[in-house]
Amino acid sequence: MPAPLEFFFDFSSPYAYLASHLIGPIAESHGRAVRWRPMMLGPAMAATGGKPLVHVPLKGDYARRDLPRTARFHDIPFQMPSRFPQVTLAAARLFYWLEEEAPDRAVPFARAVFGALFVDDQNVADRAVLGRLATALEIDEAASLAAIDQPDVKEKLKTVTAAAVERGVFGSPFIFVDGEPFWGADRLNQIDRWLASGGF
Amino acid sequence: MPAPLEFFFDFSSPYAYLASHLIGPIAESHGRAVRWRPMMLGPAMAATGGKPLVHVPLKGDYARRDLPRTARFHDIPFQMPSRFPQVTLAAARLFYWLEEEAPDRAVPFARAVFGALFVDDQNVADRAVLGRLATALEIDEAASLAAIDQPDVKEKLKTVTAAAVERGVFGSPFIFVDGEPFWGADRLNQIDRWLASGGF
Repeated sequence: MPAPLEFFFDFSSPYAYLASHLIGPIAESHGRAVRWRPMMLGPAMAATGGKPLVHVPLKGDYARRDLPRTARFHDIPFQMPSRFPQVTLAAARLFYWLEEEAPDRAVPFARAVFGALFVDDQNVADRAVLGRLATALEIDEAASLAAIDQPDVKEKLKTVTAAAVERGVFGSPFIFVDGEPFWGADRLNQIDRWLASGGF
Repeated sequence: MPAPLEFFFDFSSPYAYLASHLIGPIAESHGRAVRWRPMMLGPAMAATGGKPLVHVPLKGDYARRDLPRTARFHDIPFQMPSRFPQVTLAAARLFYWLEEEAPDRAVPFARAVFGALFVDDQNVADRAVLGRLATALEIDEAASLAAIDQPDVKEKLKTVTAAAVERGVFGSPFIFVDGEPFWGADRLNQIDRWLASGGF
């Protein structure tokens, strides 16, 4: 079985949300799995001096136009959140707790977080919202909310983030295919060909 | 005749060089012309706090990998310049002088500048290099080099750049299709569909 694609992202990244809809079918068509790796983009951005796109003059206005257009281009439901960016620390921690405790729920939970944020305009920094998403997936709400503050869970997210920055991840989404780095939802066409031909 | 695509770029931008190979065939397939608008990215970047990509930690390393890979993906000749970035002020001024004095040579000259910079590893900040590119296109070398310091030519470039920033241009390449803004060589697939369907 060939190695899975490594899909690094911050839940607060709208281009990562778009990529989350596109990467699965591409990987699957080449017999690959996808390893979802939520991380905190803040430490990565500190290394490059970057800022959330929508807060940069001119670029932000452009992104608010490009995002819904790119979603329409790919036929993906999208609504720019009224609260943006959001603190997605709790959601990312909960993902890693699920990966240990209920591995088959981790990716569905991640999809639910993205959908809450970028389709249903919910505040995923609000733990009550995360609790409802967990409940809908038949995950124990009380246990999952408690897990957000568990030291081992907090540590896991820190470790993943530090290792990602160490490997050169500075933006979201950031995808490794057999070690080859691809930044951005707009590199999925290259990833598709890379998987088909083993590089180009 | 529908309006031409407006293709804003800085000659020093490698992604604009890639776009310069891609935009013509797409425009032509929809019966459109391309209006080439070289500009100075410096003033645009001042507005967004941007820096040349290759000088940003992590991002720069990534760009040096992504650029040749993206060129291979599109089958475009490319060699990362050994001197980078280069000051492309003189080349851009010369373009606008040609647009007035020998309009049919302006775009061929622009293609020659891009090729010198991103294929032949020449220094296009060197006026002797620009003179040789002009001569090869049967443009009067002495007149063209003198034009670089003409007040009206200098003013033209400033005016184009200021008007571009005013319209929200903050990066290169930046393309308007009937007023709709597209940033980046990786939006040409969206431009293709936009031209086919009049928006989406």
